[in-house]
Amino acid sequence: MRALIFDGELRLESLSCPVPAAGEALIRVLAAGVCGTDLEITRGYKGFSGVLGHEFVGEVTECEDTSLVGHRVCGEINIGCRQCDWCRSGVQGHCPHRTVVGILNRPGTFAEYLTLPVANLHRVPPQVGDLEAVFVEPLAAALEILEQLDIGEYQRVVVLGDGKLGMLCAQALSAAGANVLLVGRHERKLAIARQLGLRAQPVSGSSASDADLVVEATGSALGLEQAMHMTKPRGTLVMKSTVASPAAVDWSPVVVKELRLIGSRCGPFSRAIEALSADAIRVGPLIEAVYPLEQAIAAIDRAAVPGTLKVILRGP
Amino acid sequence: MRALIFDGELRLESLSCPVPAAGEALIRVLAAGVCGTDLEITRGYKGFSGVLGHEFVGEVTECEDTSLVGHRVCGEINIGCRQCDWCRSGVQGHCPHRTVVGILNRPGTFAEYLTLPVANLHRVPPQVGDLEAVFVEPLAAALEILEQLDIGEYQRVVVLGDGKLGMLCAQALSAAGANVLLVGRHERKLAIARQLGLRAQPVSGSSASDADLVVEATGSALGLEQAMHMTKPRGTLVMKSTVASPAAVDWSPVVVKELRLIGSRCGPFSRAIEALSADAIRVGPLIEAVYPLEQAIAAIDRAAVPGTLKVILRGP
Repeated sequence: MRALIFDGELRLESLSCPVPAAGEALIRVLAAGVCGTDLEITRGYKGFSGVLGHEFVGEVTECEDTSLVGHRVCGEINIGCRQCDWCRSGVQGHCPHRTVVGILNRPGTFAEYLTLPVANLHRVPPQVGDLEAVFVEPLAAALEILEQLDIGEYQRVVVLGDGKLGMLCAQALSAAGANVLLVGRHERKLAIARQLGLRAQPVSGSSASDADLVVEATGSALGLEQAMHMTKPRGTLVMKSTVASPAAVDWSPVVVKELRLIGSRCGPFSRAIEALSADAIRVGPLIEAVYPLEQAIAAIDRAAVPGTLKVILRGP
Repeated sequence: MRALIFDGELRLESLSCPVPAAGEALIRVLAAGVCGTDLEITRGYKGFSGVLGHEFVGEVTECEDTSLVGHRVCGEINIGCRQCDWCRSGVQGHCPHRTVVGILNRPGTFAEYLTLPVANLHRVPPQVGDLEAVFVEPLAAALEILEQLDIGEYQRVVVLGDGKLGMLCAQALSAAGANVLLVGRHERKLAIARQLGLRAQPVSGSSASDADLVVEATGSALGLEQAMHMTKPRGTLVMKSTVASPAAVDWSPVVVKELRLIGSRCGPFSRAIEALSADAIRVGPLIEAVYPLEQAIAAIDRAAVPGTLKVILRGP
């Protein structure tokens, strides 16, 4: 099968098709999304080498549970040991022995096929199209904020970053009833945000410092300083961006303003699928371009252009 | 009067004695402590220029409320506008218009006299000696953690940093019933910590990553990475250090481990005075040296030697 490999450089290669282990399904990838984390991996994040990618929707082609065969699924990306306290409490995402699809010791989704434990799979209902279903993983990550905070406690909510994740976070928080302002650098994307029904305005050095809650989703190390500036004393700052390079950040405002910072990563797939099924979150306007897998390198190059929204790879 | 000025360089100067404004007291400084923040200011933190120092105990020499005259006091260092929402809710420390003794637009305590609003003063009871009373301000900062967290929720508590603030934090959390491990770099100071009844061990790269709560009190930008390493996934990290220089820190563990970071600054003076009065916290072993004000520059030099505990200036 064809797959996009990263091992210091990006290469499209022909690999043998993976063989599912006990409890795993073989899945033919229908569509896979390029995430900021994939780009960070190509800059050295996590020192990953192997098949890149972790967002996907696919069709089950082999599985002990034959009722799944032929169905469309997306899959949770953390695969735990199933033995430790984290796994036993249902939180594979913090298992110290976990592998992570396309990020940590496990092949990713920019390939014709991948294998995943059946326990990680979620059926995708017919009303959610392939391109929409690619957003289940990042939308789940956005919805994780609602698992971590009681959003009703916050009056002034700012999402910093007008990229894919920022727009998903802003929609997720709005749908939960928050009064959200999306702040970003790109007028084109702010216009899309407004089409999605969001309040949106350009970032500026003189932005107010009175937000009760700021979600930092710029994907840039520099976003954190702006986010600290915009959060009021004793306010809450949710950190969503993971970046490869340690950034020189003045973090004294965390102490001086007694901020509360919450790191936020993967979230609930089932809620993401529900939200897409119910059209509560709209992802169509966030799609920038769709490439065939065979043009994966061009797709990554496109995704890396600053200001680009979601780039999707289509299986053959 | 004599005073230690910082305006890019340190100088001992003769200044006119300050005149108390309405509602203020004139205070003769009996003793003043050198804090890590003072040293950071001499490295550029906050761009402060003026009389340095914010920890002190003094005797009231002039005051509209004559019942205070002749009494020993220490004083809260934030002076708010008394008009804004923060001030009206009793939190001068986050007033956007505040001045801060020896840190922000207000002369400090390394002088023969200072003025402060009477509302900022706390009487020091006779059983607390001058040198002990110098610790009221940093001990209050340590006790702030107990205002911010329900310490009973945390099983494994690590205080990272064997300096003055780390030892105060470790004692404050221990006195509140927590099972605290102090981790530091200096065998001499770890031995003092053990004399104070604390569990203490040297830091190492292979330190466990299973703490429910880590208090970062190293005073070094690099301490934060170690603190993130030692905090378990979804654990809590209290940030106490303020440093002048933006440090290149790899923030990604905050997101990947979904940590909760809590910035923590000034705290309750009354509780600090109670704890010292009751001998619940011992500060005597934390005193490194006492200098007369006239030797303030030598005192600052001494305090800046890595591994030095509390250096105190004595008024004339």
